[in-house]
Amino acid sequence: MNEASPTLRAWVYWWLERPDRNADGPRLLEIALIALISLNVGAVILETVGPVYARWQFAFDLFERVSLLVFTAEYLARLWVAPENPEVQSRRKWASSPLAIVDLLAILPAVLGMLFPLDLRILRTLRMLRLLKLTRYSPALGMLLAVFEEEAGAFLAGFFILVLMLIFASSGAWLAEHEAQPEAFGSIPAAMWWAVATLTTVGYGDVTPVTVAGKIFGAIITIVGIGMAALPAGIIASGLNDQLHRRRASLEAQFRLALEDGAICAKEQAAIEALRKELGLSRRAATHIHEQVRTETLARQGVCPACGRSLPVFESME
Amino acid sequence: MNEASPTLRAWVYWWLERPDRNADGPRLLEIALIALISLNVGAVILETVGPVYARWQFAFDLFERVSLLVFTAEYLARLWVAPENPEVQSRRKWASSPLAIVDLLAILPAVLGMLFPLDLRILRTLRMLRLLKLTRYSPALGMLLAVFEEEAGAFLAGFFILVLMLIFASSGAWLAEHEAQPEAFGSIPAAMWWAVATLTTVGYGDVTPVTVAGKIFGAIITIVGIGMAALPAGIIASGLNDQLHRRRASLEAQFRLALEDGAICAKEQAAIEALRKELGLSRRAATHIHEQVRTETLARQGVCPACGRSLPVFESME
Amino acid sequence: MNEASPTLRAWVYWWLERPDRNADGPRLLEIALIALISLNVGAVILETVGPVYARWQFAFDLFERVSLLVFTAEYLARLWVAPENPEVQSRRKWASSPLAIVDLLAILPAVLGMLFPLDLRILRTLRMLRLLKLTRYSPALGMLLAVFEEEAGAFLAGFFILVLMLIFASSGAWLAEHEAQPEAFGSIPAAMWWAVATLTTVGYGDVTPVTVAGKIFGAIITIVGIGMAALPAGIIASGLNDQLHRRRASLEAQFRLALEDGAICAKEQAAIEALRKELGLSRRAATHIHEQVRTETLARQGVCPACGRSLPVFESME
Amino acid sequence: MNEASPTLRAWVYWWLERPDRNADGPRLLEIALIALISLNVGAVILETVGPVYARWQFAFDLFERVSLLVFTAEYLARLWVAPENPEVQSRRKWASSPLAIVDLLAILPAVLGMLFPLDLRILRTLRMLRLLKLTRYSPALGMLLAVFEEEAGAFLAGFFILVLMLIFASSGAWLAEHEAQPEAFGSIPAAMWWAVATLTTVGYGDVTPVTVAGKIFGAIITIVGIGMAALPAGIIASGLNDQLHRRRASLEAQFRLALEDGAICAKEQAAIEALRKELGLSRRAATHIHEQVRTETLARQGVCPACGRSLPVFESME
Repeated sequence: MNEASPTLRAWVYWWLERPDRNADGPRLLEIALIALISLNVGAVILETVGPVYARWQFAFDLFERVSLLVFTAEYLARLWVAPENPEVQSRRKWASSPLAIVDLLAILPAVLGMLFPLDLRILRTLRMLRLLKLTRYSPALGMLLAVFEEEAGAFLAGFFILVLMLIFASSGAWLAEHEAQPEAFGSIPAAMWWAVATLTTVGYGDVTPVTVAGKIFGAIITIVGIGMAALPAGIIASGLNDQLHRRRASLEAQFRLALEDGAICAKEQAAIEALRKELGLSRRAATHIHEQVRTETLARQGVCPACGRSLPVFESME
Repeated sequence: MNEASPTLRAWVYWWLERPDRNADGPRLLEIALIALISLNVGAVILETVGPVYARWQFAFDLFERVSLLVFTAEYLARLWVAPENPEVQSRRKWASSPLAIVDLLAILPAVLGMLFPLDLRILRTLRMLRLLKLTRYSPALGMLLAVFEEEAGAFLAGFFILVLMLIFASSGAWLAEHEAQPEAFGSIPAAMWWAVATLTTVGYGDVTPVTVAGKIFGAIITIVGIGMAALPAGIIASGLNDQLHRRRASLEAQFRLALEDGAICAKEQAAIEALRKELGLSRRAATHIHEQVRTETLARQGVCPACGRSLPVFESME
Repeated sequence: MNEASPTLRAWVYWWLERPDRNADGPRLLEIALIALISLNVGAVILETVGPVYARWQFAFDLFERVSLLVFTAEYLARLWVAPENPEVQSRRKWASSPLAIVDLLAILPAVLGMLFPLDLRILRTLRMLRLLKLTRYSPALGMLLAVFEEEAGAFLAGFFILVLMLIFASSGAWLAEHEAQPEAFGSIPAAMWWAVATLTTVGYGDVTPVTVAGKIFGAIITIVGIGMAALPAGIIASGLNDQLHRRRASLEAQFRLALEDGAICAKEQAAIEALRKELGLSRRAATHIHEQVRTETLARQGVCPACGRSLPVFESME
Repeated sequence: MNEASPTLRAWVYWWLERPDRNADGPRLLEIALIALISLNVGAVILETVGPVYARWQFAFDLFERVSLLVFTAEYLARLWVAPENPEVQSRRKWASSPLAIVDLLAILPAVLGMLFPLDLRILRTLRMLRLLKLTRYSPALGMLLAVFEEEAGAFLAGFFILVLMLIFASSGAWLAEHEAQPEAFGSIPAAMWWAVATLTTVGYGDVTPVTVAGKIFGAIITIVGIGMAALPAGIIASGLNDQLHRRRASLEAQFRLALEDGAICAKEQAAIEALRKELGLSRRAATHIHEQVRTETLARQGVCPACGRSLPVFESME
């Protein structure tokens, strides 16, 4: 890959990475890529339906070849323009970023499948990884993923409790049921299938305890299951709350800075709006924060927030 | 529709739209309409029970005709009086409001069914849309719908994660089980039925993995399922918290304004009570906020909130 | 019921209603009553097991008679001593309180069963109502019930959404499946059994859609079901948060009052401890609030919370 | 156990209890112990698989003997070095701590099994208790367990409501179904199996109501079930929120103390970092708190947090 003219590289960068979020052309390219990824996933799903694949095999194979070409070109182009991005700079740094790895995973299995004889069914399933390319285009995922990242400790602790409960539940069920149902509860690993379905409140019902001891033990595990299933809900709720709290505080600080001189000028307004979108806060939430900061600022300056007149100073006590 | 005397229109407006929430007559009309909608839905439900419909066919058909007449009259009347509403003014604006569209959907299928030959069963089901007319009368829905609206971004991101998980789960299950159970897991679309039931922790159990690989993969998906099912709970909890926080702040501001002169007069009391009802806050919450604002205001004025005497000023440090 | 000597009545009141929470005798009586209620419920449960009842019928019947006598005596005694309670005063007021109605429900069915010939099985089930008598002894229930009471509006709105979804789900399933499965989906009321199990994520699996249209529609309803099941969790989480917030503020105010003079005396300590227990807050939470209020109070008085020395006043700017 | 030289005891203490968290040797020993515990649990699980145990019986038995030896030695060593720990001091106090009891439970069943003839299957299951030894190494569990401990009252009240609902649900189902399904609903205890699976939204579906009355009652119980399953989620969410709030306040106080002199020195930085880890807060959360406290401190000192210059004092009103 030779160093091409920086002007062409900058132009490709502008088309692919959209540094200017409002440009129309790159937006259309983005939509086209999203459509291609979705069609790819749809094709993999449909190929597994025997009669459909038998009928349209040629079209499916052609579509796969074209898609592979496009995705490979996209990967190489993104690699090439990486130095244009002031936040990335080196190609090595871009290639080791999560988004680049996802892009590589989207083409690697098919390329390997051309070079070595691989099981076609597994190859087909690996093409599903192209779905991950969509994460690039979903800014709304940011807050949820931030919650998962920050609460990773709590989720891990919850997972440890789940494993503990799982092992105790399957041990108990095995002890109570292995004589009555040697098939389904003959060993602890076998009993785990029931334990997982019960502790997660899924409850398939394909395997259930039948002895009195097994049913009593099963009922206790079932009740513990609600607590188990409640843990992630609690962690997510608390984590989202925390995120919102912190994001709101960031916007509040921006509003306070802008209001320090008494009014918000057009430039400050644009900066606030950009921050609001980046933080994923609703317009209504922003208006509420604005109102609060304004009231507070006015009060600090000795002006009544309701009527705008100077507040009297309470000096009767001095 | 000619322009009738404004007095008659104002009178119909007063009866239908209840600008004065305490009037008795319009309240009775409202209850009658709620009853009619409920009876309509009940009738559609009962009509699908073969023997009941065979026995009372005439009554059911008559009731449907009368209902259609009433709902059509209601729609036309609401359209006519729209200009009376200072918030709506033009009929075009009213006709494109969500509530008006719901009113139109309640009569349109039946009217179309009279003009064109349509499948009676589908027509019957579409009559269920009349149920949506009830949303007009449930002010309590407001806060919940506001949460869904404001957290739409988070819900969408959650839905995207669900679709991602769904496709991966069904691909994996298809790979593991399609030989052992060609009926239920023969293709990825077929395996999705199991994946949906598992990831949402519904767990019908009509289709479950039977191979060892399938069970291990299924157990992992089941555990991921608790996280999946927890996402909306977390989003709703966090969103409701946020709403409550903001609504409480609105009431607080009103209390602060009213208490600026030291006491709450009857007019201020009424304004606060109206705002409290509009915001859907409990009386106990309002009392709590009142108490807090009062303490704060008194402290700012140098008066002890407990005994009402002037507070000493700490000047030892100067 | 004639007016007995007030001394005897005060004595019975002291034993039954425990105005002094630390007395030992009434505490034992309370435990005995709790045991009797639990044994009663246990007896009703065991009576339904055929062989057990056949074997011990005489003992069961004797126990029921004795229990009925005790509960009747308890009800009459509580009614008699009602005027001793400064918060209740009149017997009429006590008799219409929720706890008194529960006490009456515990004896009424058995008394009626003696006078009129009633179905024995229903009578037996009604004896289960005695279980409600236990609510009197569970102060921990207070906060949860307060949440249900305050969030009643949100729960109602959630229930309305559930009914709406239920009717749409069963209509759709009926439309899609009534030909393939005339037994389970033959009418909308029949299809509701499937809709309830699905929307609540219970998922029995005794009835599931089999047609392609039914499965696609079912999958959508299943996904909506996670949202449905998430609503109450969100409402409870947000409500409990709100309760905690408010209760903590109450304790904070008490601490602030006590710390106004710089230290907490023994009497203030006791008052705070009583309030803490009444509010159901943990000791650790109380310590945290104490710490915060102390820091705040010291800062307000110009003393460093860490070392206890006077803080310098920042006057460089004047 | 005679009093050995304090130098050896201190050395063993340093290896086993890791007072210095950064030492490498003790860290390796810790990892070895974690691996041994995990292998033990894995062995118990595999031993229940008939063919595997038949094939490797000797290896399994040898591994069990060695493990027992190691765990016994570990217990005795920890008991011996207990006086070295300044927080524990006496061996009696250590032996009655939860972690010591878990250590004892890990060896006691096997020791008793050597002395008395006990059922081998139960003995095997009791070896699962060794899993609890892992809790020592999971600091992340702290916050979750603190939530369970502090919210114990709310969980108990929730459990009481569950028991109440359980008894009512099984009584009603017994009344409605005991004639149609004498096997599954023949007595209230039998009906409880269905009631547990329904109220926890597990919904096995092995037993479901078949009569119309039973289905209507079952549907009501199913809907109540979502509320039931939501309770723990709500309690955990609210409890975690509370914990986070309090932990954040602790870190905030530390920051405020460190910033009192205008800057954070290296020693203060280390103290804050240690507290942050102990409280299990993320680095991002700490940065946010730092920012907030800094802004607040500067504002209090009359300096603009954005530019660092002295703020003007608003005196126009005097």
